[in-house]
Amino acid sequence: MSSTFAIVIHGGAGTISKKEMTDELEKAFLQGLTDAINAGYSVLEKGGTAIRAAQASVMSLEDNELFNAGKGSVFTRKGIHEMDAAIMDGKTLGAGAVAGVRNIRNPIELAAEVMLNSDHVLLSGEGANEFALYRKLKIEPTEYFFSKTRYDQWKEARDSEDYVLDHNHEKSKEKRIGTVGAVALDSEGNVAAATSTGGMTNKNFGRLGDTPVIGSGTYANNRTAAISCTGHGEMFIRAVAAYDVSCLMEYKGLSLHEAMDIVVNDKLVKLKGEGGIIGVDPKGNIAMLFNSEGMYRGARNNMGLNETAIYK
Amino acid sequence: MSSTFAIVIHGGAGTISKKEMTDELEKAFLQGLTDAINAGYSVLEKGGTAIRAAQASVMSLEDNELFNAGKGSVFTRKGIHEMDAAIMDGKTLGAGAVAGVRNIRNPIELAAEVMLNSDHVLLSGEGANEFALYRKLKIEPTEYFFSKTRYDQWKEARDSEDYVLDHNHEKSKEKRIGTVGAVALDSEGNVAAATSTGGMTNKNFGRLGDTPVIGSGTYANNRTAAISCTGHGEMFIRAVAAYDVSCLMEYKGLSLHEAMDIVVNDKLVKLKGEGGIIGVDPKGNIAMLFNSEGMYRGARNNMGLNETAIYK
Repeated sequence: MSSTFAIVIHGGAGTISKKEMTDELEKAFLQGLTDAINAGYSVLEKGGTAIRAAQASVMSLEDNELFNAGKGSVFTRKGIHEMDAAIMDGKTLGAGAVAGVRNIRNPIELAAEVMLNSDHVLLSGEGANEFALYRKLKIEPTEYFFSKTRYDQWKEARDSEDYVLDHNHEKSKEKRIGTVGAVALDSEGNVAAATSTGGMTNKNFGRLGDTPVIGSGTYANNRTAAISCTGHGEMFIRAVAAYDVSCLMEYKGLSLHEAMDIVVNDKLVKLKGEGGIIGVDPKGNIAMLFNSEGMYRGARNNMGLNETAIYK
Repeated sequence: MSSTFAIVIHGGAGTISKKEMTDELEKAFLQGLTDAINAGYSVLEKGGTAIRAAQASVMSLEDNELFNAGKGSVFTRKGIHEMDAAIMDGKTLGAGAVAGVRNIRNPIELAAEVMLNSDHVLLSGEGANEFALYRKLKIEPTEYFFSKTRYDQWKEARDSEDYVLDHNHEKSKEKRIGTVGAVALDSEGNVAAATSTGGMTNKNFGRLGDTPVIGSGTYANNRTAAISCTGHGEMFIRAVAAYDVSCLMEYKGLSLHEAMDIVVNDKLVKLKGEGGIIGVDPKGNIAMLFNSEGMYRGARNNMGLNETAIYK
């Protein structure tokens, strides 16, 4: 049992350059992070579970068009929005995930439905959308997901043929990736993790990243920690990044920070996997590490911590 | 560097009851396993790579209608075949996977194409099928995947409404799951893993199991071992089963057999995850463990081992 409770969030990592950021935009991003933290914190403060808190924070980020998830999802090569999400409960090891869903207002809510109200863990594509209708999830018209910024990013990528088979990973990387996530510790000592994304701008061939992959983008276990990742998904899959942090803690006795440092700053760097990871353990230790220029992030607990940040 | 080379395969695990098996069918299964072993072994014998050997064994199983992968894939609730596959190279940590593909003769070949000829790791649904056309993979008409046995199994499941929301996991379980896989060690000391499946009979909502999930159904790393899983996919995802074996070896110094024993006979049992795992490490140690009644399996190396088996 722990009396500490905490919420930690991220809104994506990458080449976030301060000089390309206006004061106004920076303010909006920080406000979005604060809103998301408060959404999760308010669940915890009322004695709610870690899983509900993580979900609430992610839903707040999904509803904010600044972040690449839910409303703010990027366009695929076909000019549509295909979203992925996953959630995991560290108490039960229950997990739910959806991949390639469309028109779902809050994919993280759908992932939670899969966890709680199906025999399955991972549903994909049209089938996952049918499950959403069956469970009466909130659907939005395609226009809801339109944003001028995402459209301009997509047009640029489309016209430069900067898509799946383009090996130039360096070009406008910052514009192409992004994920949101939250990890929470509740006052019962349970941890949970949730991650959601609109994927990669101009993605093709039904590409999926690490977000819906339990163990790679999302993992939670009361024995170790709750973990949510953001970055170059392919490398996070190959590294089984989220579960690796957990295993380094469980099997080598490392702290959350030590374990995450190895994964983010050594293993992922060797695979050229740019991005970041957030985590919280059942004792309330928090870590937010990234090997990219920046990571939208924030954390709040009942011991006085309350911060948001973008750059190193 | 190792001078031992070896191939290990499985053709699914579950409630395989000897009394429901005819002599003729048993003989056909064992012959199918022998053919698959020899397909991989012959690659290794000629100095081929572990990745090619694992792929060759899996392709042989995919082409055999007795096994639930490729040609022998089960029917989904909609009466179609949706297949998943994954492959991983222990030398490079390169990985490729496809989920929910249709009409592809050898999904494992498509997974290898994703690994070798795309920037991605995981492609899904129609998009993955488009990639298959683009890469000129062998396509087969829907009739190719028809088998009377699978059709009868499906009709029974369909008519009993034994599908996604049916919580009765006990009923005719044996008929609903099944996966094929292979792990190989080549004479250069490199290991590789490959897994392929037609999924769960009468599956609905685009359900995906552990097969296309790197870390859960498939994992390979020259530092530890190559691993392929078969069983109740949801539990293998929640357990991150394949990578867990690897982590227990790397971080706790356990042998392949010790690590696999913990995952198969303790962790998965606690999650009620029925199934089995096969593995080979760079020294040539082989393990084939399962917590179900049986597992179609076989192994061959250049030190005289050459066996196939079905029951405990």
